[in-house]
Parts: sequence; structure tokens; C-alpha cells
Amino acid sequence: MSQSPTATTTASDQSTDGLPKGFRFAGIACGLKVSGKKDLSLIVTDHPVVAAGVYTQNQIVAAPVINSRSKTPSSTVRAVVTNSGNANACTGQQGIENAQGMCQQVADLIGCESEQVLVMSTGVIGVKLAMDRVKNGIETAYSHLAPSIENFLDASDAICTTDQSRKIVTRTISLDGQTVKIAGMAKGAGMIAPNMATMLAVITTDASLDHHQAQTMLGIACNESFNRISVDGHTSTNDTVLLLASGEATSELTSDSQAHLQQELNQLLNQLAKQIVLDGEGAKHIMAIEVQGANHDDDAFVIAKTVAASPLVKTAITGGDPNWGRIVSAAGYADAPIVPAETCLEICGETIYRDGTPIPFDAARLSEAMKANREVPILLTVGRGDGKAKYWSSDLTTAYVEFNSEYTT
Amino acid sequence: MSQSPTATTTASDQSTDGLPKGFRFAGIACGLKVSGKKDLSLIVTDHPVVAAGVYTQNQIVAAPVINSRSKTPSSTVRAVVTNSGNANACTGQQGIENAQGMCQQVADLIGCESEQVLVMSTGVIGVKLAMDRVKNGIETAYSHLAPSIENFLDASDAICTTDQSRKIVTRTISLDGQTVKIAGMAKGAGMIAPNMATMLAVITTDASLDHHQAQTMLGIACNESFNRISVDGHTSTNDTVLLLASGEATSELTSDSQAHLQQELNQLLNQLAKQIVLDGEGAKHIMAIEVQGANHDDDAFVIAKTVAASPLVKTAITGGDPNWGRIVSAAGYADAPIVPAETCLEICGETIYRDGTPIPFDAARLSEAMKANREVPILLTVGRGDGKAKYWSSDLTTAYVEFNSEYTT
Repeated sequence: MSQSPTATTTASDQSTDGLPKGFRFAGIACGLKVSGKKDLSLIVTDHPVVAAGVYTQNQIVAAPVINSRSKTPSSTVRAVVTNSGNANACTGQQGIENAQGMCQQVADLIGCESEQVLVMSTGVIGVKLAMDRVKNGIETAYSHLAPSIENFLDASDAICTTDQSRKIVTRTISLDGQTVKIAGMAKGAGMIAPNMATMLAVITTDASLDHHQAQTMLGIACNESFNRISVDGHTSTNDTVLLLASGEATSELTSDSQAHLQQELNQLLNQLAKQIVLDGEGAKHIMAIEVQGANHDDDAFVIAKTVAASPLVKTAITGGDPNWGRIVSAAGYADAPIVPAETCLEICGETIYRDGTPIPFDAARLSEAMKANREVPILLTVGRGDGKAKYWSSDLTTAYVEFNSEYTT
Repeated sequence: MSQSPTATTTASDQSTDGLPKGFRFAGIACGLKVSGKKDLSLIVTDHPVVAAGVYTQNQIVAAPVINSRSKTPSSTVRAVVTNSGNANACTGQQGIENAQGMCQQVADLIGCESEQVLVMSTGVIGVKLAMDRVKNGIETAYSHLAPSIENFLDASDAICTTDQSRKIVTRTISLDGQTVKIAGMAKGAGMIAPNMATMLAVITTDASLDHHQAQTMLGIACNESFNRISVDGHTSTNDTVLLLASGEATSELTSDSQAHLQQELNQLLNQLAKQIVLDGEGAKHIMAIEVQGANHDDDAFVIAKTVAASPLVKTAITGGDPNWGRIVSAAGYADAPIVPAETCLEICGETIYRDGTPIPFDAARLSEAMKANREVPILLTVGRGDGKAKYWSSDLTTAYVEFNSEYTT
């Protein structure tokens, strides 16, 4: 799998020192992917760790989501096993048993209970897992476990499906004078047919948290990141974000340090989320939409999300078109109030619409700026309230349509 | 303007007999469209008529919407003047005055009050109307007024923008033994840059209705038609649907006849709505989505609309892909409850998903059927409730993306 690293790393993250203490990783190929690429990822902890999870809001949930969701938050997790190439979704009772079987096998290898093992899957839906391959894969992965960066990268690769590059972020921070590492891996959210390229992420850290703290912090960080991105707005049956905290680097954190860690987690998840948007199927640009002046943050969020989802806005960004009409009118049909006479719009820092009226600007120059930037900042003021929100979305290209219409079941 | 007629007509509708009594029509070119195509449409009534209106829900509304909205329902309307090529939206106080000026000029020509004249606009936004051209155009149109089919078609053409063909439907029905005519014209809903190709429609009839009845009936008919279609989900600033009832063919209607007329109106608007979807920018297919088994009709509507808006579902239909995973999972993330274990899916009459599980089907044959049909029926059962709804949407093609991304402001 030839992938260019896209990680945001600090200097110290280039070695194994960059990984949090207490975790071993492996990523191998067991034959679930026809391509022969890595498709089984295993993370095992040295000791029981705290684990939190955030899961898809889709009413149709895959077997691994049902399994893991019932086990988090927890303070005794020992492993996360993930397969790609098959989502184990819409697979009935057999699917439930297969997810449980994966956990049981890992538990037997480690010597713990299956309740201590979490499971994730992504890939084709409605097809039963080839459990013989998974079984061999888990054995092979277990024999490859190591706390090295190489293995962390292998594990990151093995959760990918149509992703064009792996998505990882690592951080080293100081909390109460103690050095803490955080390492996150994710896979992308563009969906393919009939696969649903689920959004998966695992964040490992050696900070000390109890499972209530971990669950709360993960929920907040997801709201600041993964819940603020969209490629095509299609929520998968398998979306899962896990946070594992080994506690091996710190004693109990002060409330100041917890706040600091929360901030770092927010940023780290946000970086992973933006990598997912940038890797959206066929995406050429990422729209960074900021809404301000709404009555409440929730209103601003609804407006930002509505603008982000508009195919007309997306195609305008694709074409480098500073099209205030599409953006402002999308805000106008959002299910949250705006004040048309106080509505203003900036693209790439240039004001093109003020107090409800378009104003003259150098369209050719602005268009060039939009085309040149991978990330196109859009600042929309919708009134004089305090409500604000950010949202990131991919643009919409012919490549997306080709990719998603050329499959035949 | 070379356009193939797409009207659904009865034999009697082929002559001027097909038009309701009491209306004269004209459609001419006044130079608002660079192409030189017809861009000014005028409908004048012989006597004051009942008029009802349904308008965009966008918070940003164009000047003509503000103008007409304040005048309906009414029982004294004499004319509807419509220009295409310029939406008169986001044009400030000057725009308000220009819309009013159009009404005043028509009123002066007819010899009535400007309050009796309705106005609609569609086209580029943020640009002031060339009122000299509009003024000449209104004079020319007034001199061309006639109750003929030819003039009705001219008027229908003059409200179009990027529409590939005019959209009209006429009907002749019998109410209480009296012959009633209904004639509707509409223009399409795909939006272009920075134009917003607004959805406009005018329905004329010679049935007798009071303005409260007319308003209620139009609201119901819109909910069964224009509110159940989407091309790209982008609500325009100018959307307007008007119903004009001259009363020249009937005396007061019995309640049975009113119910009959309602049914006819629903069907007529529905046919116009489907013409709009079929003419969606780049559209190859129309998805006819029917949801049943929901708890309430409102829930079924939300689910149908969510499925209809999914780019993944749209691209699957484009590719002739019977992709149950995309459709069922879109229903799963709709903001209305479904019962996953009771969810079933039929495409083109063939069941491919039953009680939460995919079932074997001849994918190649079904794909051929999907490709061969301009309208692809999708029947989704989401439980055992009584709630049901229909929704129509265009598919998503590379042509849509090319069309909407190649413009540069």
C-alpha cells in the first residue's frame, strides 16, 4: 500500500518515543481485501486500560458497533481488533456471532475476557465475514504485535478502505510536569458502493483518566471535530471513534491539566477530521465554513452544515467561483434564523457581500486564490448574535460522481 | 427557442378550447436574456379574478416575492407579469421599486390598481433590472395579448431559464355538469450560477372559487407536488406558485366538486413537478421514492426526502446500480424512526432487501431495467405503521457537476 504520510508530528514523534506507553500494534493482510492490502489491525494493551466510545447515529448499526457500544465506557479494556474489506453490517445473527467470535479469539490469545476486547469493521455490507481468514489474520497480527512506529503505521493502514493515504496524528504534551503522548489513527468517510466507507478512529494516550472522564472528553472532542465534517452527508452504519487511556505516563490529572488535555484532544481529532475531508472521494478542496452572528451556537452549526451540504456551493468551490448567491441563499433556507439585512460574506478573507447586498470585488483574482488554496475559508456573518460555529466539507467534483456511479452491483 | 412540447394534454386541449375562459397570454423577448430568447411573460384577465399564492420558504426573498406575497390571496387580480433573465433578488430598495414599477405599468395599461397585478422574476441575482428593456417589453407583450394556445405557449417559454423544454399541463374536467379547464405552466428548479433557476408556476382555471378556497386548495396541491421534489435541495429566493380562478365556466361548486377539483389540481401540479425533476440539470433519471410503514405520514416524508437527497443514492441511480446499502442506510440516518428488522426495499418492482437482510436477485437484469426506465420506482418499507409518502428527485450526473462548476463569476 503506497501511501504518503500525512501525519502532523512533532520532532519527537518520529521515533517510537512518539507513541504512548502501554500499547502494542499490528496491521497485516489476511485476504479480506481482494487487492491483498492490509486488512486486519490489532491494538493490545499491556494492562487493562480505560476506554470510551462514540458510535454512529444511524438507526441501522453493524454487528461490531452493537458489540463495542455495549462495552464502553470501561476501565478494563485490553484490545481493539479491526478488519477492513467487510463491514459485517446487515449480516443478521451470524454477524453478531462473528463480531463476538473476533473478540473471543483475541481474548483467548491475550488471556482475558471477551468483554475486554472491542471490535470495529469497515467495508462491503450485507456479506458474511470470511471467518477462516479473519481467524488466521488475528493469529498473525497477534504474533506481530510491537510498540513501534512501524507497527502503528501498519495498524493505521489496515483500517483503511478507499482512503488514498493513511490518517494519523501524534502529539507530545506536558501535563502537571509529566510527558504525555497521544497517537490517533483514522480512516475516511467517503462512501463507496455497496461498501460504506465508514469513519473509524482510535486514539491512544498514556494519560491517566477514569472512564467517565474519558467518555466525556471523547464526546466533547468529537463534537468539535468528526461531527463537524461531511463528504457527502451519508452517515454510515459502522462509524466508531474509540479513546484508550493507559494511564502509564501520569498520575491523576489536575482539573487544569484535564482542560489542557481536552484542548489537545480537540485539536488532534480536528486534524484527523480534516484529513478525512481532504481525502473525500474526488475532493479537490476543503471548504472551511465559519458562521458567526447567529442567535446561538446551535443555530450557527445548522447554518454552517446546510451551506456545507449544498451541491451548488460545493460545485462553486470546485470551480473556484466566489458565488455569494449560492452561499447566502443556502444560509437562507437553513432551519435557523438569519438576518438578511445584516448578512455578510468573506471568501479567502475578501468581503464580497455586506449587509444583504453584493459589493464589487476582483472576481478573477479571488477565483485564482480559491483555486490555489487546498482549504478555502468561508466566513458568513448572519446577524449580530453571539452564536458561532465551524464546519469542514469537501467540494463536489465529476470524479466523485464517476467514482460513485460507475460501480455495478 | 427550440423546445419539444412535454405537455400532458387531452384531445380537446390541442385547440384554444383547451384554455380556461377569461385569460389572455403573451410571451416576448425584451433583451434581458443575452441569448435573445423570450424573457417577458404577461397574463391578463378579462375581469378581476381570484388569486392564491405559495412562496419560497427561504429567509432571503426577492423583491417580486415580497410584492406578490403581500397581495394574495385576493379576489381582484387582473394580471401576472413575469420576467426571466434577472431574478431581481438581493437588489435592495431599488429592486422593491422596480418590482412595483412593473406592476404599476401593467396596471396603467389595463386600467386597474397596481395592487391587482402580481409579479414574478427569475434569473441572475444581485444585478439591477434593466428597467428600460422591461418597460418596452411590457408594452410589446400587452399589444400581443390573446387567449390562444400559441400565446399560452409563448408565455410558458418566456418564464423559462435553463429549462431544456417548456413545462405545461392542461386539463378539461366536468364539475357539476359544467366543463372546466385548467392550464398550468412552470419552470425548472435546477439552480445555476449566479442565477438561481427558481421554480415558478402559474395555474389558470375558469372554475369558480373564493379566495380562501383557492388559497387552501393551492396549499394542499403544492404539498402533494412541488414540496415533494428536489433537484439539488437548494431552495431559491424567488420560488412562486400562483393559482388564478376566473369563475367564468361555473357557478359556485358543490363540496363534492371542490374535492374533485382538488384532486385534479393535485395531479396537474404533480405532473408539472415531475417535468421539473426530469429537466433537472444533467438529470438522466427521476427517482420516484415511496416510503410506507412509517409511524406517521410526516415521518415517511422525512425519510423519503432524506433518501432523495443522498448523493450516494443519486449516483447509484445514475449508474443503474440496485444499491440497497445506500438506500437503506440513508433511511437509517433520517430524522424519523424506522424499524431496521422490518425494513424492505423494492426497486422497479423487484424486492432486493427484506426484513433487514439483503436477498438474492438478478443484479444485471435489474440494473438493465433501472437504466431503461426514465423513472425509477423505489419502494421502501420501514415498519408496520400507516405512515406513507412519495417524493421525486433527479439523479446526480457528471453533467450536473460540470454545468455547476464551470461557471466563473
